[in-house]
Amino acid sequence: MERKSHMADTEKLLIIGSGPAGWTAAIYGARANLSPVVYVGVPKQNPAPILPGGQLMLTTEVENYPGFPEGVSGPEMMGLFQKQAERFGTRVVGQDITACDFSKRPFTLTASDGSTVQAHAVIIATGATADWLGLENELRLAQMGGGVSACAVCDGALPMFRDQPLAVVGGGDSAMEEASYLTKFASKVYVIHRRDELRASKAMQQRIFDAPNAEVLWNKIPIDVLGDEKCEGVRLKDTQTGEESTLEVKGLFMAIGHTPATQFLDGSGIDLTDKGYINLGDRTSNTNIEGVFAAGDVADADYRQAISAAGMGCQAALDAERWLAAQGIE
Amino acid sequence: MERKSHMADTEKLLIIGSGPAGWTAAIYGARANLSPVVYVGVPKQNPAPILPGGQLMLTTEVENYPGFPEGVSGPEMMGLFQKQAERFGTRVVGQDITACDFSKRPFTLTASDGSTVQAHAVIIATGATADWLGLENELRLAQMGGGVSACAVCDGALPMFRDQPLAVVGGGDSAMEEASYLTKFASKVYVIHRRDELRASKAMQQRIFDAPNAEVLWNKIPIDVLGDEKCEGVRLKDTQTGEESTLEVKGLFMAIGHTPATQFLDGSGIDLTDKGYINLGDRTSNTNIEGVFAAGDVADADYRQAISAAGMGCQAALDAERWLAAQGIE
Repeated sequence: MERKSHMADTEKLLIIGSGPAGWTAAIYGARANLSPVVYVGVPKQNPAPILPGGQLMLTTEVENYPGFPEGVSGPEMMGLFQKQAERFGTRVVGQDITACDFSKRPFTLTASDGSTVQAHAVIIATGATADWLGLENELRLAQMGGGVSACAVCDGALPMFRDQPLAVVGGGDSAMEEASYLTKFASKVYVIHRRDELRASKAMQQRIFDAPNAEVLWNKIPIDVLGDEKCEGVRLKDTQTGEESTLEVKGLFMAIGHTPATQFLDGSGIDLTDKGYINLGDRTSNTNIEGVFAAGDVADADYRQAISAAGMGCQAALDAERWLAAQGIE
Repeated sequence: MERKSHMADTEKLLIIGSGPAGWTAAIYGARANLSPVVYVGVPKQNPAPILPGGQLMLTTEVENYPGFPEGVSGPEMMGLFQKQAERFGTRVVGQDITACDFSKRPFTLTASDGSTVQAHAVIIATGATADWLGLENELRLAQMGGGVSACAVCDGALPMFRDQPLAVVGGGDSAMEEASYLTKFASKVYVIHRRDELRASKAMQQRIFDAPNAEVLWNKIPIDVLGDEKCEGVRLKDTQTGEESTLEVKGLFMAIGHTPATQFLDGSGIDLTDKGYINLGDRTSNTNIEGVFAAGDVADADYRQAISAAGMGCQAALDAERWLAAQGIE
């Protein structure tokens, strides 16, 4: 493949990723006259769509991003973020970054079209993706806001789920937390788990066992989601007997894990946690490599909200700007 | 003073402060059915106005809060935050918290009317205030968006400051950083300092000495700000000779420090840094006292932005919710 450079000059600030963290870093970087360039990525399918703009592009209604009391759709919100970043001079490149050479400065990054670009500072804001079962109706209903979701904290408080029977798929701490959260709204919460014991900590398990409106369905896997426009139920298969059954629920929440988008950092020397998240050692956005910063879900296994990711994007841009200034690059 | 209680029941989640961090914590807390109560504070003057809603109530135009590409006024933005928090069931009390007893749970807090309230979990989001000189015209122009500001990163990129002569008051690292930031936009940046040497680190000083459009004015203090509706200049007095002079600038930026609002925590046992900020030991919102969390500028001497404070508010609410659930309080 022919190797070319998108621009002759070395970028001051290159941002990888275009969710809340990436665009917020761009707004701050642009206002600091760093003329940032954002690599927004190309659309993918794995198994759910992965779009420029990130996880919010699959979110119909965002009620908890402060500033929008009536709610806002995920794609609309990301459009506003991008417009604001572009207003101050952010440039946008419709490519993924596929490889990073952080061994010498300025850094050299390779884009998905084979081109390379050099940058003095890099902010990694590539996010994470929820893990899905990969069922056709699961993804279709999730995309249309039809009651299938991978985030109870984001979506659980929506009116459509109030006083309805709901189900959570998973057996870890996150699944227990999502299920426990949903018990506040739902008439009943089923936890669907493929094995006969939970991976969650004892304390988290106990919260579910103690909840009067929660019930664990052991040795079950979902094999289909029922409903044309809204989730009407889930078809289950028993992993021991093979027996199939139907569970009538109005909402289905996946809690089988998240995968941070850090595969492109293989060999880059960036420190990752054992789950693949970028390791930020302190309260800054500094990675272990000077001049490389991270923000948003790619460095956050705990909170994973639009507003917390945006806050981290702001921090990363300010950290990058201070570091660039200390290097005499302004 | 008669001691009474606002409500008979113990609050699940009590939030102190009503800036971006406090309201975001309330939005998340309310959506998690914790029925939070926010103590928004009472208006004060010290010397600039301190209002429910925080520092943004004195900010005419916010251009860097993601989601508002055309900008939004600070008070309008805080109104939207409050509306969103109230929509999900947040209650609002127009009192300050003046004392905290965190020695036993549930915690007991005293309000400015002498009443007490008990709470299982507390989020401290009382913010910080910029230090001001206390000149009459300084505060008047700051409030009307007339070119006087205590935050170059917030306001420096506004069109009114482009290619204009500006001045920064201060001699520490923050003052050098603000001045350095402004050199990107201004025709000239004067640093007004009352002594004959700077308190800032050598590296930060060097950035100003090296900037072709920056100049330090030694041994000078501002004694008046000129201009009826917009800053037209600043009247200076030499601290050695007493001589007065006029410096023509279109913007004046205070960088003489910030004071976190933590005085009411005296004797509460909450760990503070040597500058009075709440000490968060790790990447969570946990203070050293279990069940007490902090968010926003009161725990952040470094970033101090609306969006980063809001992100911290979200984290504090999620931390509080998880902690309450682990205590069996839901």
